[in-house]
Amino acid sequence: MRIDNLQYSNWSEKIFRQMREGGVDAVHVTIAYHENFRETVLNFEQWNRWFERFPELIFKGHWASDVDTARETGRTAIFFGFQNPSPIEDDIGLVEIVHTLGARFMQLTYNNQSLLATGCYESEDAGITRMGRQVIKEMNRVGLVVDMSHSADRSTIEAADISQRPIAITHANPHDWAPALRNKKDDVIRAVTENGGMLGFSLYPHHLKHKSDCSAKSFCEMIARCADRYGVAHLGIGSDLCQDQPDSVVEWMRVGRWSKEIDYGEGSAELPGFPPMPSWFRDNRDFGNVETGLSAVGMAPEEIAAVMGDNWHRFYTENFTPRG
Amino acid sequence: MRIDNLQYSNWSEKIFRQMREGGVDAVHVTIAYHENFRETVLNFEQWNRWFERFPELIFKGHWASDVDTARETGRTAIFFGFQNPSPIEDDIGLVEIVHTLGARFMQLTYNNQSLLATGCYESEDAGITRMGRQVIKEMNRVGLVVDMSHSADRSTIEAADISQRPIAITHANPHDWAPALRNKKDDVIRAVTENGGMLGFSLYPHHLKHKSDCSAKSFCEMIARCADRYGVAHLGIGSDLCQDQPDSVVEWMRVGRWSKEIDYGEGSAELPGFPPMPSWFRDNRDFGNVETGLSAVGMAPEEIAAVMGDNWHRFYTENFTPRG
Repeated sequence: MRIDNLQYSNWSEKIFRQMREGGVDAVHVTIAYHENFRETVLNFEQWNRWFERFPELIFKGHWASDVDTARETGRTAIFFGFQNPSPIEDDIGLVEIVHTLGARFMQLTYNNQSLLATGCYESEDAGITRMGRQVIKEMNRVGLVVDMSHSADRSTIEAADISQRPIAITHANPHDWAPALRNKKDDVIRAVTENGGMLGFSLYPHHLKHKSDCSAKSFCEMIARCADRYGVAHLGIGSDLCQDQPDSVVEWMRVGRWSKEIDYGEGSAELPGFPPMPSWFRDNRDFGNVETGLSAVGMAPEEIAAVMGDNWHRFYTENFTPRG
Repeated sequence: MRIDNLQYSNWSEKIFRQMREGGVDAVHVTIAYHENFRETVLNFEQWNRWFERFPELIFKGHWASDVDTARETGRTAIFFGFQNPSPIEDDIGLVEIVHTLGARFMQLTYNNQSLLATGCYESEDAGITRMGRQVIKEMNRVGLVVDMSHSADRSTIEAADISQRPIAITHANPHDWAPALRNKKDDVIRAVTENGGMLGFSLYPHHLKHKSDCSAKSFCEMIARCADRYGVAHLGIGSDLCQDQPDSVVEWMRVGRWSKEIDYGEGSAELPGFPPMPSWFRDNRDFGNVETGLSAVGMAPEEIAAVMGDNWHRFYTENFTPRG
């Protein structure tokens, strides 16, 4: 079973076919960065059109069982998530509404302060806000997973503690392997995994040691080390694959409507766009290279299966349904 | 089995308890008159709060099988509908979105011209519009029922013919029994029922012969006559019960935001508010009186069961699911 728990590509039939070539049973796709509710609904609508157009390749994923259906029917189940709480605006009632529409993950922040928590690019992190506490409780009730991939340390640790259900860092790597601002320090990863949560390993070059030149060996050794440190049951893939996107999209991700000035985020004035992917992970067709790499660094077949999809499958089973 | 296929009350625990007292297994409730998409979502949210608060009385109905669940668990399944296409604005993609959120009926018009068709208060009826044809096709695809209760004659007949699935007049009576503007002429009812559609009988006094003074006998004789004329399989109840509403609500229904002048609709300057209900049908507790009345006019038990709920149940089974 292969589950990639974070992608944001410029979707096309080509990419959906590559998911099939790569044997990817489920993908969690981002459908909002800065969109408000109505704009996010337009993105749900766009996906409905793709589902109608390519029913032999993809379908909308609601529950863990849809991953099994995907395997049985040779298709890819698409699960939805937001990288910002902007889709729920200031309205807690929208938490259940977006879950009904299919959202399964929501970051409490992108890079900036949100109504709920603090993003990792802010200089001060005041932790989870008053509304944040209410929204976490409501997310727990309906089965919308708290994702802290882009959040600041204190906010993340507090979210892991406040949440009554496990939370996730869907796409990031350990900071002590690649000291990017977006990668996570040991105590943050511990807070998430010790509360039953998940860490999804990112293949976005800015999150990799030596960026685009990162070797498969280095990436897989890092995963093996995390398995020893945090327990293999808490690890999965969240590739952060942003395939075929024009550079205007990374600008939308970074700047949205919140600034009139350019903010390069993880990039720079010299490298403002998407960096090239590592040679051994071009796109959805290359998950086999990760499996081979994990085997080469000595991980057992059942451990590899856990990281490549079984752990996310278990997490989906336990965390997407409303609380009884 | 008892299904009331149209109510719009000032919802409260009292009314939900009266549904249980009256043995009502399912109610189709109106959640939009003139609301745009975002405002309609607020109404879905309000219902989510009621479902959370009164789980022992009501729950959200999605499919016909939920009516059976309601009977088995002693609760009432609530199905959603709109009396206007205003919730989908000018966006055909919202048809699937509102169905996902739980909408199962949508009127193509309220009393006025809409983007889709003509309402029964307009002087000219140009039939189904360009967008109307597209939206009917999309409603057929996703399982959102076309409701023409407030539409003009030509528009209704065209909708019945254009639609690839049966349509409904959820709440109205025959015009030759009570010649209200909102009641339906013989050729209109025939167009709907001959295409497999349903007529739901209204108990709103403006739709009754002698209004609030209408007798149960007259109402039930009218139903028996319709059974002979259109076939009992196409008949149900759509009481149009508007319980405990302040008069400001009937003003919203009639005027919305489309006029600065008061429009009294079916009322008048002398009687601007909701008229009193007939003594034998006060509210949800009195469906037994309708059954007794139908028996008194000679209808057989299985015919009565068909009208009181079995027909709507069959209609739900056939028309709420997406087309395979």
